[in-house]
Amino acid sequence: MVRINSDYGKLQGSYLFSTIAKKVGQYSEEQPDRKIIRLGIGDVTRPLTPAVIKALHEAVDEMGEEKTFRGYAPDLGYDFLRKAICDNDYRSRGCDIGQDEIFVSDGAKPDSGNIQEIFAKDDRIGVCDPVYPVYIDSNVMAGRTGDYDIKSGRYAGVVYLDCTKENGFCPDLPEEDCDIIYLCSPNNPTGTALTKDRLQDWVDYANKKGSVIIFDAAYEAYISDEDVPHSIYECEGARECAIELHSFSKNAGFTGLRLGYATVPKDLKREGVSLNTLWARRHATKYNGAPYIVQRAGEAVYSYEGRKEIRGLVDYYMENARVIRSGLEKAGYEAYGGVNSPYIWMKTPEGMSSWDFFDYLLREANVVGTPGVGFGSCGEGYFRLTAFGSHENTREAVDRICRL
Amino acid sequence: MVRINSDYGKLQGSYLFSTIAKKVGQYSEEQPDRKIIRLGIGDVTRPLTPAVIKALHEAVDEMGEEKTFRGYAPDLGYDFLRKAICDNDYRSRGCDIGQDEIFVSDGAKPDSGNIQEIFAKDDRIGVCDPVYPVYIDSNVMAGRTGDYDIKSGRYAGVVYLDCTKENGFCPDLPEEDCDIIYLCSPNNPTGTALTKDRLQDWVDYANKKGSVIIFDAAYEAYISDEDVPHSIYECEGARECAIELHSFSKNAGFTGLRLGYATVPKDLKREGVSLNTLWARRHATKYNGAPYIVQRAGEAVYSYEGRKEIRGLVDYYMENARVIRSGLEKAGYEAYGGVNSPYIWMKTPEGMSSWDFFDYLLREANVVGTPGVGFGSCGEGYFRLTAFGSHENTREAVDRICRL
Repeated sequence: MVRINSDYGKLQGSYLFSTIAKKVGQYSEEQPDRKIIRLGIGDVTRPLTPAVIKALHEAVDEMGEEKTFRGYAPDLGYDFLRKAICDNDYRSRGCDIGQDEIFVSDGAKPDSGNIQEIFAKDDRIGVCDPVYPVYIDSNVMAGRTGDYDIKSGRYAGVVYLDCTKENGFCPDLPEEDCDIIYLCSPNNPTGTALTKDRLQDWVDYANKKGSVIIFDAAYEAYISDEDVPHSIYECEGARECAIELHSFSKNAGFTGLRLGYATVPKDLKREGVSLNTLWARRHATKYNGAPYIVQRAGEAVYSYEGRKEIRGLVDYYMENARVIRSGLEKAGYEAYGGVNSPYIWMKTPEGMSSWDFFDYLLREANVVGTPGVGFGSCGEGYFRLTAFGSHENTREAVDRICRL
Repeated sequence: MVRINSDYGKLQGSYLFSTIAKKVGQYSEEQPDRKIIRLGIGDVTRPLTPAVIKALHEAVDEMGEEKTFRGYAPDLGYDFLRKAICDNDYRSRGCDIGQDEIFVSDGAKPDSGNIQEIFAKDDRIGVCDPVYPVYIDSNVMAGRTGDYDIKSGRYAGVVYLDCTKENGFCPDLPEEDCDIIYLCSPNNPTGTALTKDRLQDWVDYANKKGSVIIFDAAYEAYISDEDVPHSIYECEGARECAIELHSFSKNAGFTGLRLGYATVPKDLKREGVSLNTLWARRHATKYNGAPYIVQRAGEAVYSYEGRKEIRGLVDYYMENARVIRSGLEKAGYEAYGGVNSPYIWMKTPEGMSSWDFFDYLLREANVVGTPGVGFGSCGEGYFRLTAFGSHENTREAVDRICRL
């Protein structure tokens, strides 16, 4: 008799964004005439840019001709894309990363969920609280945590790194040891970013302890401050302790196109084994490459036109971030983020719980945000708004919130 | 100090097809003037068909316009595709499968590698020998097997179902219990197919024992015999014991486009838990949907034009299968498969080992095939050729082999 993976039973409720989608769906059915503005899930709304569209059409045509048709992609990604990534995201920033340390994938979400597979079952993970749920949930499903405690809102066996108003939402080095540390900067959900000095502290910690940092750089395109690093490999010693995850979703709007990459330096070894080799084996066995046409679209993001257009997209969303943050502050709300990040992290008014504020905002302002507590217990009393809407909707949403 | 997943250390060598690619690459470098014909990896060579190309271009245009742009896809796939799958692959065959039992993915390889995650760590797997390596390797990586034994070429703790000339390469019901049974029909690599009666025996066995069958139907489009089922749900009771995996790679040539789906019926429960719910949770947490444009391409496969064109593709490759099998037989080789399947399973001549024959064929005929032993110890002394080349190359490869 087959038995199921009992670790799934430890998971709390359904995946956060599925729950939100259901709640919004239900409200829409009850009130079909209301115009709901979604500033909840981190999904972009601007169309793909002309350089990307052109590359897609050209690649589609190639796939329709015998001479230019492409079947299975190389396991780790096409060289043309790995080279563009290497040149633009690393070499241009002085980071010592080689093409063969880059693994093209279908996005940072799958990579951040799958990367834990190459580590031992009893490694202890350290995660920020609040945190992007995938880091924890994927480890729960793999049996790397204990049970969930309803009172604390936390899983046993996990080191939680509190990110609070007091520490500026930047995690302090942990007192307990942790083996695998997930860091996301600029941060989802708090919108804050680690300075180079702060990130260097983490790299030094990891090298001292033999830990591995999973550095999620999905939002690096939103960085404007000079002292915030775009890559963890700007820090000394990161090649020996860090894996970096990148996405094309938030810079180039690929949420519906699916493309990302993981960087695993060859100097990153544990127990004498190269993690680059382990991840290559995982990729070769359980993945079959991102679509050729999508990899060509990714290449176009790094072209001269592409880079200009992508800058335009980021500027567009950052104007929203500015509108949201300044609007909220003018209306007397406490708000954070929105500077090096498309996320605004606001304090709920009058000590309201995150989910109460979610329901309140949905019903009274027809605006969808994300309850802070959905990202962890330190997120209780907070609420995340995203800058990924249109200018018009964003302004209207802010107006509606401020009128409440 | 972080520790790595020691189960990876049990894996034998690198992934089969990576090894082949390396060997061929090396030979090409040594002999750059030789024209190598690849009948090794199961990769298609015909371009995408006009209906698919048209759907891709249209979807790309939609992604370039604000009003029609699509961000994150629904977790489990777009309804338009799930409906097309449900109507065409199931309802039209009288299979009782609902749209909400279909999970769109980026292919049958990732699905077949990932599906084991929802089962307990100490469930015992049963696999055919020879077998598509992903079924075993993904379980080795998950710690569901013991060590590899070099002498037998097998992992401890796995039930191997011998597929030999004696049983017509169709596995007999096992004497030892197994919890998760991987079946692939039409089979990769042997090219043989289970009749409905034989498959019904397996469904009955699974229901009696409480096992779950992972049924890989990636090659169903190649079926021509009437008594060979296209879906396991043509068998009575399969809704209670079977998960089915489908691919768009081998029928519609999507190897470089990446699309597949898994079917997990709601009646499939173990320990009171619905496997449909578990897989939905896995999908929502660790996956982010297939690209919109690729899902539209998938939809086009089921259109009137699309079905006609896909039939043409399959017929094209099956003509190759006929040429290979009859050519080999005429030249005195023992050959199997190639009737309901694009694979031809040949006996190596004069008791040659599979890898010796691989090297011999590469050097003497400049033809690449796949060593049978790469699929398991029962594959020793066999060799797989695929029908996915062009007519011209296929004929030339057969001529070269026959001239040896």
